[in-house]
Amino acid sequence: MGRWEPDARGRLEGAAMELYRERGFDQTTVAEIAARAGLTERTFFRYFSDKREVLFSGAGRLEDLLVRSVRGAPTSATPMAAIAGALEATAAMFEERREFARQRQALIVAHADLQERELIKLASLASAIGEALRGRGVPAPAASLAGEMGIAIFKIAFEQWLGDSKKQGLAHHIRQSLQELKAVAAGKQRGPRRPAVRTGRIADGL
Amino acid sequence: MGRWEPDARGRLEGAAMELYRERGFDQTTVAEIAARAGLTERTFFRYFSDKREVLFSGAGRLEDLLVRSVRGAPTSATPMAAIAGALEATAAMFEERREFARQRQALIVAHADLQERELIKLASLASAIGEALRGRGVPAPAASLAGEMGIAIFKIAFEQWLGDSKKQGLAHHIRQSLQELKAVAAGKQRGPRRPAVRTGRIADGL
Repeated sequence: MGRWEPDARGRLEGAAMELYRERGFDQTTVAEIAARAGLTERTFFRYFSDKREVLFSGAGRLEDLLVRSVRGAPTSATPMAAIAGALEATAAMFEERREFARQRQALIVAHADLQERELIKLASLASAIGEALRGRGVPAPAASLAGEMGIAIFKIAFEQWLGDSKKQGLAHHIRQSLQELKAVAAGKQRGPRRPAVRTGRIADGL
Repeated sequence: MGRWEPDARGRLEGAAMELYRERGFDQTTVAEIAARAGLTERTFFRYFSDKREVLFSGAGRLEDLLVRSVRGAPTSATPMAAIAGALEATAAMFEERREFARQRQALIVAHADLQERELIKLASLASAIGEALRGRGVPAPAASLAGEMGIAIFKIAFEQWLGDSKKQGLAHHIRQSLQELKAVAAGKQRGPRRPAVRTGRIADGL
């Protein structure tokens, strides 16, 4: 390991995002990102395997947090309650990085290979939640379904949060999506209710 | 277009699956698939863009069927009822190809790039269902969530169907998964109930 660089990871992330927006993701090189951050390429590769991974380096931390929260939920908690608590626990992680998250989302929507990587990340999170629920004794099909449902809630809540002109918190949108999912599952959404609003969903671009 | 070959598509699919199992997916070439089917490479490329697409050629038909079913559901149907009907309508499409579906699933679980392609297909289906629901006047976040929930049900039901030693139909497993999802959403799955059984889920390999 070379000498310690104060907040090298954060500087590289900021520099990468600036360059992706200025020149486009495809045109940006690792050398340029390192130079913009005032660091060496060697330092870049200490933190990220390639320029794509700058946008996905939080995935491991996110998964750890979700899995720990599901495992740590009270024994009496239902799968949905355990998942709701876990999703809400992640909100703080994103709240302070809203602008980064918004720019990242715009990049992902615009690049098919980033969309693929994002889908893999989300599938992996759903699987990890399902596994954590099985560890709590939830039977396999219900645990897997609950993991998928948790990620569906997270995905929609995240999009609503990024597009929210009132700037309500991610935790608020997670609770909203959870209520919405419960209402849909219970068959409470019957026909037209309010005007449909299109959101820029990741999957829409596929 | 060249001369008509009886069931060229089916012969190419069968030949491809045989070769993928005998030699492995990576080692098989389009030339070999065409030769095994007794057809030319030119005929192969009339049906499939590459050897991967042999495994995904049904995706367009599946999406059409789902979208048409959601659109055609009675006006009074809730989003979940419309989705349930659409998913059940697809069952016949798979029922007669169970062995192909099982072999295909085994290949996908074993290959990261096929898993990615499968995730893209599923995300695209979720998005198409959400769009069809918006067309019925369902507001955007609920419609998107319902699309994701529909695909979660389909994914789990499909895995249960392929692994079912009692050979119950796909429609049965779709209804089961739908009930399971409703129970999970309503908070009815509380703690251990029956022994957890591990299924070979696509996402587990990620």
